[in-house]
Amino acid sequence: MNNKVLIVGAGAIGGFYGGLLAKAGADVSVVCRSDYAIVKQQGYRIESHALGSWQFMPNQVLRQASEYQGQPDYLILCTKVTPDIDRVALIRDAVTPHTTIVLIQNGVEIEQEIQLAFPDNLLISGLAFICCNRLAPGEISHLAYGKLILGNLSEIDEPKTQYLRDLFLRAGIECLVSADIVASRWQKCVWNAPFNPLSVLSGGLATQAILQNQENFVRRVMQEVCTIAEACGHPLPANIVENHIALTRDMPPYKTSMLLDFERGHTMETEAILGNAVRAAQRQGVDCPCLQSLYVLMQLRELQIRSNSLLN
Amino acid sequence: MNNKVLIVGAGAIGGFYGGLLAKAGADVSVVCRSDYAIVKQQGYRIESHALGSWQFMPNQVLRQASEYQGQPDYLILCTKVTPDIDRVALIRDAVTPHTTIVLIQNGVEIEQEIQLAFPDNLLISGLAFICCNRLAPGEISHLAYGKLILGNLSEIDEPKTQYLRDLFLRAGIECLVSADIVASRWQKCVWNAPFNPLSVLSGGLATQAILQNQENFVRRVMQEVCTIAEACGHPLPANIVENHIALTRDMPPYKTSMLLDFERGHTMETEAILGNAVRAAQRQGVDCPCLQSLYVLMQLRELQIRSNSLLN
Repeated sequence: MNNKVLIVGAGAIGGFYGGLLAKAGADVSVVCRSDYAIVKQQGYRIESHALGSWQFMPNQVLRQASEYQGQPDYLILCTKVTPDIDRVALIRDAVTPHTTIVLIQNGVEIEQEIQLAFPDNLLISGLAFICCNRLAPGEISHLAYGKLILGNLSEIDEPKTQYLRDLFLRAGIECLVSADIVASRWQKCVWNAPFNPLSVLSGGLATQAILQNQENFVRRVMQEVCTIAEACGHPLPANIVENHIALTRDMPPYKTSMLLDFERGHTMETEAILGNAVRAAQRQGVDCPCLQSLYVLMQLRELQIRSNSLLN
Repeated sequence: MNNKVLIVGAGAIGGFYGGLLAKAGADVSVVCRSDYAIVKQQGYRIESHALGSWQFMPNQVLRQASEYQGQPDYLILCTKVTPDIDRVALIRDAVTPHTTIVLIQNGVEIEQEIQLAFPDNLLISGLAFICCNRLAPGEISHLAYGKLILGNLSEIDEPKTQYLRDLFLRAGIECLVSADIVASRWQKCVWNAPFNPLSVLSGGLATQAILQNQENFVRRVMQEVCTIAEACGHPLPANIVENHIALTRDMPPYKTSMLLDFERGHTMETEAILGNAVRAAQRQGVDCPCLQSLYVLMQLRELQIRSNSLLN
């Protein structure tokens, strides 16, 4: 039995997936900082269009990983990936030799830092395709989607990865194990790389308006990401750009996660999504001028936000 | 004698140069719309660090060109070049067969529209390198610079161009006639193309901060503009990028004209500066991905501004 799960970063996404694992019978605890008081008292209330509503009462509700009682089988890290979050420090005190570390996080090339810090632990890299919001402390609204893709960086079939997938499936959410999770990350980046920064830099346009007005540019940025992925040894399906465009056209007008972070004054995942992609391109000698332009502009935008907040 | 001058678009820049020509002895009238009442009553008060202060009382102060009494020798158009300003309509009623049309305006490839509408008139294309502000209706502050470059699109020495230059020189401002005014426009665009949109899209950074943080990107955009200019038959000096960078480094932190327009809620010269440059590149089959990225982003930013103002 691999039943003890610790979620670190239990906001909307961490709380939602933790709640699913608890539904599936796992012993789930959470480290949550901003909503600690409420969650400690009454757990999470999860409202899902697809899966109904339920109460999720974590076994342990903690302020930090060091307070965890026991040895987690899975430590699932669900924070954003931003320069102001030290992911290794956040989880170090709860990682035991047999703990499997699971990342449910955005971006490309975000695994190395964790691998280097915990070279002997099994690492599962995971991607969430989900639309869910925190309505209030401890209140999560799951609006749409929810699919998880999990994978190991080695190409070995890992029983602990299969087991985790089965827990998620039992809870009623789509979950699959990818033989090339790194390629899956690049595939997601193909969408994120244009739409996330364009939504912020345009001053708040939704995906529909961006696509309707600048489809050629969106396609070019997407194609640059495909070229980088291929240069990194992870060629993407030939139809990926076409598929992403078609899917976006069929989506309702959508605010990207980066735009939501921007509007809330939160740090954005510029480095995890754009910075890491551009650095990979530079390492491989690939030119990606449009992606680079977006990265440059996001860095200047963030510089301006920081200098504004210093003035206030 | 070529002494009758009509300034159309007599805001800060038009008022300043009109005031100089009046100082030099010309008979200067103005079409000014927003400040009409004050200017009609008391003219302009011009305060210049370099040239002292003076009162400029135009001979005729008009709401529109059709009200002009007489036949202007020079009609000097000083409006911004934006899609919401119909430049031909603004000047048509005052252009006589012997009127020389002078553009003191920003952007590249902005002459054709006027040439097509007035094929038999002499056209002088002019560029102002100036920092001046409208402090209040009829009050102009000239802060720095002031150089004018004038030129004809044909390569013939035009006496009327020389005569206008001499008027400006007599008033104490640097003015020269360029043998290739189109190249001069591209040279100015080399600076404007990166700094104008980057200042807006970053959310308001001054030139110093942009250069300190993203010099490589600025250089790349500048280089793309040089390549377009060359493809259009106007090769720029080899050291132009280096010179622009060095000059910008030595300038005090500076808010670009596009940023000022943006902050004031005015239409920006996106099309005249970026759009026309990108269209020239496309016509010549030149790839300019970084410039194109800036143009795409400015278009989305403007779309968002328009959709916001529709909501309000």
